[in-house]
Amino acid sequence: MYTLYYSPGTASMVVHLALLEIGAPHELRLVDFDTKAQHDPAYLKLNPRGVVPTLVIDGRPLSESAALLMVLAERHSEAKLAPAPGTPEREAWQQWIVYLSNTLMSTYRFWFYPPELGAAEHTPEVRAALQRKIEGVWVLLDAQLAAHGPYLLGAEFSGADLLLTMLMRWSRNMPRPATEWPALKRLADLVRARPSWQKLYEIEGLSEW
Amino acid sequence: MYTLYYSPGTASMVVHLALLEIGAPHELRLVDFDTKAQHDPAYLKLNPRGVVPTLVIDGRPLSESAALLMVLAERHSEAKLAPAPGTPEREAWQQWIVYLSNTLMSTYRFWFYPPELGAAEHTPEVRAALQRKIEGVWVLLDAQLAAHGPYLLGAEFSGADLLLTMLMRWSRNMPRPATEWPALKRLADLVRARPSWQKLYEIEGLSEW
Repeated sequence: MYTLYYSPGTASMVVHLALLEIGAPHELRLVDFDTKAQHDPAYLKLNPRGVVPTLVIDGRPLSESAALLMVLAERHSEAKLAPAPGTPEREAWQQWIVYLSNTLMSTYRFWFYPPELGAAEHTPEVRAALQRKIEGVWVLLDAQLAAHGPYLLGAEFSGADLLLTMLMRWSRNMPRPATEWPALKRLADLVRARPSWQKLYEIEGLSEW
Repeated sequence: MYTLYYSPGTASMVVHLALLEIGAPHELRLVDFDTKAQHDPAYLKLNPRGVVPTLVIDGRPLSESAALLMVLAERHSEAKLAPAPGTPEREAWQQWIVYLSNTLMSTYRFWFYPPELGAAEHTPEVRAALQRKIEGVWVLLDAQLAAHGPYLLGAEFSGADLLLTMLMRWSRNMPRPATEWPALKRLADLVRARPSWQKLYEIEGLSEW
């Protein structure tokens, strides 16, 4: 029913985590970045941008990790990755997922791929600006979690926390990793202790946080 | 029930359009960028990032225009801004909204605000790279719409088309506006002919496309 095209530790991670949380049967297909498999014509038919993840549902390819999290949460409401429709928590959930996607994911893209900003390497000014932008998100989220945590929605874990923890992980080699903010670290520790996280590390062969 | 904090022609536009499409009673509050009202302490309490829009629902402030579109579509399913849950169209709808938000909205932010990349003005290289990124989205969307249009979901209009047309509008003073792609122009013409679009122009006092 589900086939996930993934690459270890990339944006596919949140979709893989969601599938593990749900316990939904799925096939994994590795997209090997070392051989630039994301640009193979066969893969581009599924995903015209040549990025991961792609989730094929009953033959239909879908992309955008944050959207796939929403789609899976809606298809498997019993897994409680999203609050029930019609509740204030549901609306906050949608807000956080969109916020994480359009601030962090997009800025990381520039951080990790300087050519997308027209340079082989970032100038110190651009690098500092991107770092400032990402850290600004940590400041805002840490304040939110310190006041209303431990999770993004408060007392209850949700799929939004999977997305946030994946995005925190990407900062681990930055000058100031997200885990330096205490309320963010507390959330990440909770998510990293979940069986889904540990199982994903085994399957994807990840070691470093 | 709804109070929308907006600024004419900005990202609040899609939320305003959604309210008009729904016909939902709402109050408008202008956030005056000329007086930097988006940084007023009272506004920052509603919206810690100091951006528009904010939609206050029964006293709860929510932000992120793409999320607000989803929230309103879900609260007013009779307006058919989103396909019904459990359908393939619904999942495509979620994909397109997230895609538009995390590619275009985030890249426009850098395009329009060079200081967010650490400079008073963009270098020609950065400017060209941002332009290339935005135009790459038009290429992809134009191909999608030419093959499966006229709307993002095919034959049926949805709220995703409101978001796309707003984002197309922002390109009007760029070297190559989105309307130069024929299938995109066809979609924009359909959306601009809707009563909601025309009413918004009157209310927000917009004139140029």
